[in-house]
Amino acid sequence: MAHGSGLDRGLLSVVGLGPGAAEGMTLVARATLEACDVIVGYTVYVDLVRDEFPGTEMLATPMRKEVERCRIALDRAACGQHVALVCSGDPGVYGMAGLVMELAGEYPSVEVEVIAGVPASSAAAALLGAPLMHDYCSISLSDLLTPWSAIERRLEAAAAAGFVICLYNPSSKKRPDHLQRACDILLQHLDPQTVCGIARNVGREGQQCSVLTLAELRDTQVDMFTTVFVGNSTTRRMGAQMLTPRGYRLDGGC
Amino acid sequence: MAHGSGLDRGLLSVVGLGPGAAEGMTLVARATLEACDVIVGYTVYVDLVRDEFPGTEMLATPMRKEVERCRIALDRAACGQHVALVCSGDPGVYGMAGLVMELAGEYPSVEVEVIAGVPASSAAAALLGAPLMHDYCSISLSDLLTPWSAIERRLEAAAAAGFVICLYNPSSKKRPDHLQRACDILLQHLDPQTVCGIARNVGREGQQCSVLTLAELRDTQVDMFTTVFVGNSTTRRMGAQMLTPRGYRLDGGC
Repeated sequence: MAHGSGLDRGLLSVVGLGPGAAEGMTLVARATLEACDVIVGYTVYVDLVRDEFPGTEMLATPMRKEVERCRIALDRAACGQHVALVCSGDPGVYGMAGLVMELAGEYPSVEVEVIAGVPASSAAAALLGAPLMHDYCSISLSDLLTPWSAIERRLEAAAAAGFVICLYNPSSKKRPDHLQRACDILLQHLDPQTVCGIARNVGREGQQCSVLTLAELRDTQVDMFTTVFVGNSTTRRMGAQMLTPRGYRLDGGC
Repeated sequence: MAHGSGLDRGLLSVVGLGPGAAEGMTLVARATLEACDVIVGYTVYVDLVRDEFPGTEMLATPMRKEVERCRIALDRAACGQHVALVCSGDPGVYGMAGLVMELAGEYPSVEVEVIAGVPASSAAAALLGAPLMHDYCSISLSDLLTPWSAIERRLEAAAAAGFVICLYNPSSKKRPDHLQRACDILLQHLDPQTVCGIARNVGREGQQCSVLTLAELRDTQVDMFTTVFVGNSTTRRMGAQMLTPRGYRLDGGC
């Protein structure tokens, strides 16, 4: 099934693994990892699939070395190999798909394909019930690549317009107070009792989730493996889960 | 593997099929469909999996009968069966997860689980390149369950705050002009040359996608099987695809 190393044109498949465990990937993602010559990725993600494909070469690179990682993958594909660059969740949502496309112009012999995965927002939402049933925004709180002022503006706009909000990268060692700062902005537009949810290590060991109010979320410490949801004004608690109703008439008349 | 019909507690798995074809579902979704006693869903989605699970009972219901469909699934689960209610894409994004949760309170003997799938936004984005690499909003243009004024407000907020926008339900027979009306609102905030993309029948027969400007999108007729992307100010065309850069420094310094 291998693409082989003697082809004129290499293939780089940017593959989403979905949430944590191997069973969260799609059938086409699995078939791609079975067919490829080499799997490249951030150490943690390569380790997630290492045992599943014991005969395949693996190249793991450290965190933050995104450009280097993509170049390693493109270099191998330029030699005619079929390379799979693996990402957690969906490579098209805060993943490597865009960076690969930006760099691929320098590698005209390489064909690039993106294999979508279940994004963290969908995986975490499923665990928490149904928070994303209505219009929603996805906002990253990381200001490594985005000015904080732009993040603030998006938080304000999303809250004022009644979107459900999914927060990626809610915290890190270098910026432990970003979620608190975000909540303070949201609290200017939203009721402190707004139903929120957090999900951590979805699909991995130590998976946990909880539902809480926006006021409580403000004073909760989360880490970078956590996905955060802030409901809209209709979102409600359902036992240990949360639900944003879509508006169906439950008498069957809809 | 079947849950069996003699159990006290039924199980309703709300299963996302991901994009069109069977290979777009996750391994856990496939295992769930293999294990269940009966598969329930809108006719088009049941037909997508009919050939894959020939020994499993299938119950197909027409479009718009969402409440009835969920009740059929819950009724069967209340009899102790393991029921899989299938949705295209992700059941947690404009799918059936929320409605099932709303109705499940009436069925205390039924356990409900949501099996996330690749949402249409991610599947369509992968085909178009990498439009969703930065903060984005998902907005449905269907005003069946949402007042059009709320949709307008969200379109304005999303455009003004620099979100990439993914439009679901951009058109239908009863509302052929919704995309045009949405574009007119967006054009008050965005450059007519803003890079946009449309993807149709993703993962199914007749799959197609194209990249165009916002001005061109305004005068394009799409159908309900189409997902639409409106880029932010940095989104650019890359050949036949589109890319929203995340902001990495390509000299390797990031």
